[in-house]
Amino acid sequence: MNKLEIPDIIISRLPIYLRALRHMKGEGRLTTSSQELGAAVGISAAQIRKDLSQFGGFGKQGTGYDVSFLIKTLREILKVESVWNVAVIGMGDMGHALTRYQGFTDRGFRVSMVFDNDPAKIGTRVGDYVVTDMKEIVESIQSSKIKLAMLCVPASAAQDVTNLLIKAGVTAILNYAPISLNVPAGVRVQYIDPSIGLQRMTYYID
Amino acid sequence: MNKLEIPDIIISRLPIYLRALRHMKGEGRLTTSSQELGAAVGISAAQIRKDLSQFGGFGKQGTGYDVSFLIKTLREILKVESVWNVAVIGMGDMGHALTRYQGFTDRGFRVSMVFDNDPAKIGTRVGDYVVTDMKEIVESIQSSKIKLAMLCVPASAAQDVTNLLIKAGVTAILNYAPISLNVPAGVRVQYIDPSIGLQRMTYYID
Repeated sequence: MNKLEIPDIIISRLPIYLRALRHMKGEGRLTTSSQELGAAVGISAAQIRKDLSQFGGFGKQGTGYDVSFLIKTLREILKVESVWNVAVIGMGDMGHALTRYQGFTDRGFRVSMVFDNDPAKIGTRVGDYVVTDMKEIVESIQSSKIKLAMLCVPASAAQDVTNLLIKAGVTAILNYAPISLNVPAGVRVQYIDPSIGLQRMTYYID
Repeated sequence: MNKLEIPDIIISRLPIYLRALRHMKGEGRLTTSSQELGAAVGISAAQIRKDLSQFGGFGKQGTGYDVSFLIKTLREILKVESVWNVAVIGMGDMGHALTRYQGFTDRGFRVSMVFDNDPAKIGTRVGDYVVTDMKEIVESIQSSKIKLAMLCVPASAAQDVTNLLIKAGVTAILNYAPISLNVPAGVRVQYIDPSIGLQRMTYYID
């Protein structure tokens, strides 16, 4: 499988399918159809069939998709069949919330280090973690080979911290700061921005 | 402008353009190009020109887009030129973080009510707000005509609370619970799910 051949837009939909399939499995479902999966995620059945066909044939005409097999395969494709360590940077409200978030379990991630630059926070515990001094960020992340970070610092500090994360070898950043980050090729950023989520809905409110 | 004519996928990109344009404006820029905007948001210049052409001509060949005018027009299209009141449901870590979040300012939203069902939290202050009893959710939201809610309750409670929100007249839900919600036609849900954001990047990590 050549990763250059699969368009980003398809990869970006696979986690959505995976979440819906896990939900179905939790309800005891063994099989599903592209129609049903499409209804669950708000994407057309044709698009789902087309997306999944990129990775070989999953469904059989008439019997549909095996839920567990499709979950297993999507996890392999997305490389979340095991657990990635993630660093959380910035122990404000959002960093706190993420460090204690229960939604990563069994989805491929665990928080493994947390950082802040506030002397009053360094050395204190948040959930199961002791807050490490931001000064040690490059060395700590490098030595633990962490590739993923969740960035929860103020917008004014976000680019500088991003530069440190990249120096440390991080290649995937989930950015909670309300600012666009400049990153070199080979580093990915996903934005978590509640204003964007809300702005995607107000258009439709009469 | 008939809202049925504009595909959802285009509407979903406009807030991304808006964020990048606000960033440019903050840096003192007066004009931009589809190439530059595209580079900032990771979308092709051709796609941006095509998206914006849905709403009439914004750019002039050779001079590009007027940043302030484009911001103003996008805010009008998305109906965020004024401020929407938003209810926050669930005062756990995430609800706390959102209630105190500084990133809504000047982007079209303000938190105006917060709810929880925990007697220890009801009546206490979070940021500028007093936590209201979840029992009053339908009546409170109805009487204040709030249309937007951010849902930060546990996954197990999310669907029940969603049903109450819909009963109260909410038509747009930003869902932080790691679960898919069932809603009737006319109600929109956007998901904020950090696992999805991370899963969209792990595919690319070698």
